[in-house]
Amino acid sequence: MSVSSSSSPLRLGIAGLGTVGAGVIRLLETNADLITARAGRPLKVVAVSARDRTRDRGVNVSGLRWYDNAVDLVTDPEVDVVVELIGGAEGPARALVEAALQAGKPVVTANKALLAIHGPALAQVSAEKSAPLLFEAAVAGGIPAIKTVREGLAADRLLRIGGILNGTCNYILTVMRETGKDFGSVLADAQQLGYAEADPSTDIDGLDAAHKLTILAGLAFGRPVAFDSVHVEGIRRIGAADLSFARKLGYRIKLLGLARVGDAGLEARVTPCLVPEDAPIAQVDGVFNAVVAEGAFAGRLMIEGRGAGAGPTASAVTADLIDIARGSHIPVWGVQVSDMQPVRACPLSAGKGAFYLRLRVEDRPGVIADITAVLRDCGVSLRSMLQPTPEKNDTAPHVPLVLVTHQTSEAAMQDAVTRIDQLDVVTDTPVMIRIETD
Amino acid sequence: MSVSSSSSPLRLGIAGLGTVGAGVIRLLETNADLITARAGRPLKVVAVSARDRTRDRGVNVSGLRWYDNAVDLVTDPEVDVVVELIGGAEGPARALVEAALQAGKPVVTANKALLAIHGPALAQVSAEKSAPLLFEAAVAGGIPAIKTVREGLAADRLLRIGGILNGTCNYILTVMRETGKDFGSVLADAQQLGYAEADPSTDIDGLDAAHKLTILAGLAFGRPVAFDSVHVEGIRRIGAADLSFARKLGYRIKLLGLARVGDAGLEARVTPCLVPEDAPIAQVDGVFNAVVAEGAFAGRLMIEGRGAGAGPTASAVTADLIDIARGSHIPVWGVQVSDMQPVRACPLSAGKGAFYLRLRVEDRPGVIADITAVLRDCGVSLRSMLQPTPEKNDTAPHVPLVLVTHQTSEAAMQDAVTRIDQLDVVTDTPVMIRIETD
Repeated sequence: MSVSSSSSPLRLGIAGLGTVGAGVIRLLETNADLITARAGRPLKVVAVSARDRTRDRGVNVSGLRWYDNAVDLVTDPEVDVVVELIGGAEGPARALVEAALQAGKPVVTANKALLAIHGPALAQVSAEKSAPLLFEAAVAGGIPAIKTVREGLAADRLLRIGGILNGTCNYILTVMRETGKDFGSVLADAQQLGYAEADPSTDIDGLDAAHKLTILAGLAFGRPVAFDSVHVEGIRRIGAADLSFARKLGYRIKLLGLARVGDAGLEARVTPCLVPEDAPIAQVDGVFNAVVAEGAFAGRLMIEGRGAGAGPTASAVTADLIDIARGSHIPVWGVQVSDMQPVRACPLSAGKGAFYLRLRVEDRPGVIADITAVLRDCGVSLRSMLQPTPEKNDTAPHVPLVLVTHQTSEAAMQDAVTRIDQLDVVTDTPVMIRIETD
Repeated sequence: MSVSSSSSPLRLGIAGLGTVGAGVIRLLETNADLITARAGRPLKVVAVSARDRTRDRGVNVSGLRWYDNAVDLVTDPEVDVVVELIGGAEGPARALVEAALQAGKPVVTANKALLAIHGPALAQVSAEKSAPLLFEAAVAGGIPAIKTVREGLAADRLLRIGGILNGTCNYILTVMRETGKDFGSVLADAQQLGYAEADPSTDIDGLDAAHKLTILAGLAFGRPVAFDSVHVEGIRRIGAADLSFARKLGYRIKLLGLARVGDAGLEARVTPCLVPEDAPIAQVDGVFNAVVAEGAFAGRLMIEGRGAGAGPTASAVTADLIDIARGSHIPVWGVQVSDMQPVRACPLSAGKGAFYLRLRVEDRPGVIADITAVLRDCGVSLRSMLQPTPEKNDTAPHVPLVLVTHQTSEAAMQDAVTRIDQLDVVTDTPVMIRIETD
């Protein structure tokens, strides 16, 4: 056990001293004794880089070497490992990670966008230079999702991977369900509470979840997954009415990332979904994340926990550092780059599924006949329909109509929705949500 | 990446060809390509040992060297790694594992009893001989619980660890709740379905869960945990009535293993518990297992999945083999043996908790006054009481009475139960179940 017997510290250079960076420094201080025991040697921060040298971060960085340019951490001969916590797929984060790997220095990062977009190229450099690149904190915060997929399930052929990958969206959908409030007002509350960013689009439009799904799918299937091939929908169009109708139908609404490999290729998508209310994933509420993996031998596995925040993210970053101290040298995607066979991206329209469709229609006879005729013409079979009785004092000329289909082809359904949207009796853009029952 | 670049096979000797042993051989065949890619080299079974050479196991072992004595696998110069799937804390399993480690050969085992009872001594040999000992399959089958605790949460100070660790008990309690049937008849059904052994005592008396909890606690706290120090209760005394009363009170009943370290020492116990029906762990039903870990930084994490069966267990065993092929060299308990400080075992009676108490009492005035007087004298404060109206045609002179306490000391509660049991008006031994709300 060569690494463990070494007692010289593993010296760290940390770039980015936001919430997570400060959290890592605090964790390394607080748990120094047990981290040293588990790593087999002390982990010691020797240098840092951030924008503002004077800001109070609640941790003492005065004894550490300071670099204004993050990439200078790489040339510091006393930095053994570079920790990248700047964020962003381009700019200084990418420059730092590339430079460190090129210099043969191990890198730990929490950067999901960087891995999702440049992961395959970075894996190539990591392999050429024998410099590990670890990124546990990039997916699902404190949940060791990466390790579970890359190592815990390494023997199994995974059939699918995914889950609730964005805590902001899950929080908003949970509060909408519990309070009956509409999207906009719950988002505003979430921003006040710090659960959503001032510019929330990366979260609520599904991009953050798509970054994470890209990474998970690459690991699960040992294939290079192009971020652009992921179909992405966010939660902006989900209304309070949808949460309420879903409940009446025995479902909850979750933003799910899901990827699977079949004969037609890789299907990867981030979409709002109706899930049966007694399914384990339906119980994962608030800011919690959950990762679901299904293997041919291991069966289905679900891990839930805190997907964000200083503590959980720092725990994941530092676990990676302990792996490096222990001498871990696993390829970035779990297999050698040369073993990663490309896989065809399967367009969403080639898939099948059941669907929930909420329409706003004119309140007059014949409307339902018009709509069901379109579904029939498109070969979409209806499982149930819900038309709530209007409130007594509701004199609006438009009423909601909710349709639930049997399993059908996604292409047929998209065709049907386009045609239904063109009907004169349909007054708003239809809201279509996929139903995930398995 | 020295190990990955080696393309010579890692040669395995497997002892024990029951369901799991045959499952490992099948998995290695079925997933040979991806296992080779992830391990960086092929995994190849070269020798086996089992009792009956002629039995049909559904896998072809004809080309493999056969040993009648498992321990002879160790001296086979072509066996690089020993896989122990015999089971049992003593006998050939223990002899094989000890001999292999003494010979410096890595060992992978699924043997929970062996690790729970002889784990600290085996860790010593593993360290002295630099021979890894991995045992992912010993806890919670296909769930990578060991890896999650030992590596995924390595940076964090764990506050508690535990969960639903026995699928047989969880299956029985789930069916009792769903059907209203009593323990004995559900057990008999489970035996017929193969979910319970012919001699079910290891499972239903909580010993199997206690073995797993001992292992998890050792890893979580980095302390040697004596199996004898775990308080163990099984589920034999849980009646259909308890499931039904629990539901009325808003709870479900689960057999939980739970360990925590506090100022008073290590508390570890396996007991039936009432858990709030909306708690995530309450949703884990049937043969599924769930492991819950709570860290100071990472927060709470729960993993659920298949805790037994050939496929999930083979997946865990083979993931360990891939780790060995990749050159993993983590100490048995995550820290060096010399770093494992002993911890005082804290007796259950030193703890606190809330309790459910089901009594069978005479149906006459004054009974409740007698019982509540005992509780008052013992300093136990009552939160609620349930006395179901007898069925119309029920002329039995004895009726059930269910009491739920506020938080109280375990010692006071045990005292109260002993005294209540001695009351003339109480006709059966009281059933006391702990309530776990957090």
